[in-house]
Amino acid sequence: MKPIGVFDSGLGGLTVAAALNRKLPNEQLIYLGDTARLPYGTKSASTVIRYSLQIANFLVSQGIKLLVAACNTASAHAVDALREALPIPVLGVVEPGAREAAHRTTLGQIGVIGTLGTVGSGAYRRALQDIRSDLVVFSQPCPLLVPLAEEGWHEHPVTAEVARHYLSQLRQQSGDLDTIVLGCTHYPLLKKTLADQASGVFGHPVELVDSADAVAQAVADELVDKDLTQRGSRVAEDRFFVTDDSRFAELAARFLGRRISAVENADI
Amino acid sequence: MKPIGVFDSGLGGLTVAAALNRKLPNEQLIYLGDTARLPYGTKSASTVIRYSLQIANFLVSQGIKLLVAACNTASAHAVDALREALPIPVLGVVEPGAREAAHRTTLGQIGVIGTLGTVGSGAYRRALQDIRSDLVVFSQPCPLLVPLAEEGWHEHPVTAEVARHYLSQLRQQSGDLDTIVLGCTHYPLLKKTLADQASGVFGHPVELVDSADAVAQAVADELVDKDLTQRGSRVAEDRFFVTDDSRFAELAARFLGRRISAVENADI
Repeated sequence: MKPIGVFDSGLGGLTVAAALNRKLPNEQLIYLGDTARLPYGTKSASTVIRYSLQIANFLVSQGIKLLVAACNTASAHAVDALREALPIPVLGVVEPGAREAAHRTTLGQIGVIGTLGTVGSGAYRRALQDIRSDLVVFSQPCPLLVPLAEEGWHEHPVTAEVARHYLSQLRQQSGDLDTIVLGCTHYPLLKKTLADQASGVFGHPVELVDSADAVAQAVADELVDKDLTQRGSRVAEDRFFVTDDSRFAELAARFLGRRISAVENADI
Repeated sequence: MKPIGVFDSGLGGLTVAAALNRKLPNEQLIYLGDTARLPYGTKSASTVIRYSLQIANFLVSQGIKLLVAACNTASAHAVDALREALPIPVLGVVEPGAREAAHRTTLGQIGVIGTLGTVGSGAYRRALQDIRSDLVVFSQPCPLLVPLAEEGWHEHPVTAEVARHYLSQLRQQSGDLDTIVLGCTHYPLLKKTLADQASGVFGHPVELVDSADAVAQAVADELVDKDLTQRGSRVAEDRFFVTDDSRFAELAARFLGRRISAVENADI
């Protein structure tokens, strides 16, 4: 009867919450967006670990049975520290996303785009090469895509030009590839623009892997494995916490695909 | 013999530190950039006030004689709370910048560009109309300019297009104006791009007011007024604190105009 905890630096993790709602409609979620301290993508590993542990302690105090780090940067830097510190299962988004990408590629050449923190950590490269050691991985930080997604400029000409800039840099490294991991939970909002620009830059369609559905599947498997699945119908509505409520309600619907009735403040 | 405290959400306030170094070379500065929690521009007033008070307490514990809120968003939201809480003089950047703009305009029509927080607060409008009640003030939030400045895309075609977008929105409101306040300490890095685009959009050159020098003059006046001026030559080098050291040293020179030898971590 316990809820699943999901956290992100802000709103992007709501795309993972939406996938969990679709896959596991009877499970109650408690979401926390650390909107007072976002973004995580430009911050050092030690700061991201410290913030992730504070959030995890808050969510554990709310009685969660499993924690999902729905932020790529937090997944890249903090999953090991969270697993060590917490008495419950912890899942990140990197491993499920990497598995999905490894499954989809034909060429065996994969690109990863994400924040400075996620790309700099090398977490996707390690996860991909743990799955298939022959995979060739190229990566490109794209720091301007998060603010563009947050502004709602999803198909704006400026976003197209910025995407083309970053994808061209990826192409210069890789020559060719057939699959790109969207290594940031904001990027699914820009999927159409990224797909169009990737086709143009690489001269053929490129698979864009959004890890949200893969994460939801990994959570479902983990619940079965640990015998933690909710029996019967849902006991309570999802709850949404933020550390700063500015613009959350306004922006949340874009990510979650539905309106949120109540947003609560978490004092962390 | 005491230092002056200067804080910002991150690096932008270093442009104010540089102006203080030029105007008051004998005064030691203690700078704090809250890089772990930046940006402030998208956050609510209550969060910005809370963070500003935490930083002020840290700087007061370092023995400062005067505090400069070198962040427009913190100046807009938190100067009153800081003055109430602290036993030392507190200066923000809004009032000196507004005074400078009121002095420079001929038409009496002034634009203000800044973060969502700064523009939403109405602080510049109030400050300008307190100085001259007949001034007509138009304002436009420009949330993408901070990330573009931080990426170093100061004269990039994307930055020009984004600047033109925001300035066109300002023009739609105002019809005409002759002066624009750069209401964010990041914007002086984009001054050339903003000046070019403003000329294009308004059809004539527009004065861009960067408040850094006006703030340095206001600090000099306040030191004289309160008999706090450093006598004789400088006693110690400036000190620089951050709450997250990722990229600070790399980016600081752009804002300060010189290299920083040591960056210290503040545990706030």
